Amino acid sequence: MDMLQAPHTWSGIEMALWDLIGKARSAPVWSLLGYKKAHKKMPYASVLCGDTPEETRALGKAAREKGFRAAKFGWGPIGRGTLKDDEDQFAAAREGVGKDGILLIDAGQIWGEDVDAAAARLSSLEAQNALWLEEPFQGYAYEAYAALAKRSPRVKLAGGEAAHNYHMARHTIDFGHVGFVQIDCGRIGGIGPAKAVADHAVARGITYVNHTFTSHLALSASIQPFAGLEAHRICEYPMEPKQLALDIAKNPLVPDANGELVLHEGPGLGIAVNTTGIRKYLVDVEISAKGKRLYTTPKL
Amino acid sequence: MDMLQAPHTWSGIEMALWDLIGKARSAPVWSLLGYKKAHKKMPYASVLCGDTPEETRALGKAAREKGFRAAKFGWGPIGRGTLKDDEDQFAAAREGVGKDGILLIDAGQIWGEDVDAAAARLSSLEAQNALWLEEPFQGYAYEAYAALAKRSPRVKLAGGEAAHNYHMARHTIDFGHVGFVQIDCGRIGGIGPAKAVADHAVARGITYVNHTFTSHLALSASIQPFAGLEAHRICEYPMEPKQLALDIAKNPLVPDANGELVLHEGPGLGIAVNTTGIRKYLVDVEISAKGKRLYTTPKL
Repeated sequence: MDMLQAPHTWSGIEMALWDLIGKARSAPVWSLLGYKKAHKKMPYASVLCGDTPEETRALGKAAREKGFRAAKFGWGPIGRGTLKDDEDQFAAAREGVGKDGILLIDAGQIWGEDVDAAAARLSSLEAQNALWLEEPFQGYAYEAYAALAKRSPRVKLAGGEAAHNYHMARHTIDFGHVGFVQIDCGRIGGIGPAKAVADHAVARGITYVNHTFTSHLALSASIQPFAGLEAHRICEYPMEPKQLALDIAKNPLVPDANGELVLHEGPGLGIAVNTTGIRKYLVDVEISAKGKRLYTTPKL
Repeated sequence: MDMLQAPHTWSGIEMALWDLIGKARSAPVWSLLGYKKAHKKMPYASVLCGDTPEETRALGKAAREKGFRAAKFGWGPIGRGTLKDDEDQFAAAREGVGKDGILLIDAGQIWGEDVDAAAARLSSLEAQNALWLEEPFQGYAYEAYAALAKRSPRVKLAGGEAAHNYHMARHTIDFGHVGFVQIDCGRIGGIGPAKAVADHAVARGITYVNHTFTSHLALSASIQPFAGLEAHRICEYPMEPKQLALDIAKNPLVPDANGELVLHEGPGLGIAVNTTGIRKYLVDVEISAKGKRLYTTPKL
């Protein structure tokens, strides 16, 4: 089951509280977490694979032209066709991102717990010099992760986005032996537990990465837990946001001329919420019990 | 986080669907799961420890007088006072349940992940011949479970009630090395995933037990997944149900003269729901969005 309405809602509240504390203390959230500095990150363009290698190549080139030096290609046809189909996709992704670009592949849990099916792709991932293979298996399949990690000394495994509490993330590291732990602050319970995972990643000598595909408010929140970890450079950057994700922030986070990302200097999360811009998404809802009104959508 | 409204709701729906299929096919749920027979279970009276050893002794005697040959004592003072306090509680519990009774102790996660604190109680649990020590740690603390299991060859560990999916239960067995895996059908996603855990327990040579502290509808559902496993004898029996838990069933499950429990013969879950009896618990709720009524509490 992956019915996480309560953890998602709670996570949103937790992140908003950090923003509030930061604003009350005129301090960025990362400083409240004990970091001395917010280091620049290397954002990777996160895109879905094209249906054909040609489309995937074009997506990689487009990301490159937008200034990204890293790109992740995922889901779509991966694991759904032949071994050769996947090899062609990986090769096209490499061509698109360029020889010197950072190439990441996201299998979107396609192999369930089938270690051999995933392992069959390792040599072509190595040939394309992929930095990581993400979510080959279900989030809970720690044994499968560990077995594949053992067979893949060069291409590290990435996983953890499914973690909806600190413990699951820790197990993904300690039992699953991932090389990159990917944490979604909007799912794990917010910034507090995400920071605890970052600490655990440092202790275990693996790399922390954010998992973010929604708004720039979420993006800022997701970078705070590892903002001060200079060696944990790479960060996910949503490339195909929904309009709501754009409308919510007055000051989105945009990579600089070097393709690097730096958090805004403002207090809290540093993102100015555009309450006017999101007004049109509000849905009038009413909930009452025993004839008493318990909830009405507030005015913005 | 332990905010499991969605898994709990889903579990209720899943169990109701098994009941419905069983009624449509005139077959008990356990037969739909592939079992040839529903074996008798040995219900244990599940009670909270008294504040003093005297109270705990009296609770054990009361359970014994009601015909129970097994009793579980939990929570309350355990782990909150001195080592001696716990020893006195365990001794009183043994006296209450009698020399030939089955004694179970439930620590209610009191030691977090502190293996040494739990291990300090092992010798007195052994001295009282306790069958199991339940939930010494948080549900996700598989490493702590494994470490304690290694130090406790005689008193087996019991755990798993926190599992809200099949994977968590499997990890409690494979990483936590419990001797008894306790599954709550109302939390794990219903009868289907619970049966998968029972199969895994059989494959691993450990014992499956239900976790139930609510209604007799839930009790019947919770026994179905291991009804056909003759060697998995012991079953939890809620001793201190809320009035709603009693009012919901016209034909509660009551131990026989030998203190054994057998499922009703009727199809599905075999429990007749008393819709009249639970009418008084209904709360009138209305939910509307965009002026359209989405939900209104139905009439019973």
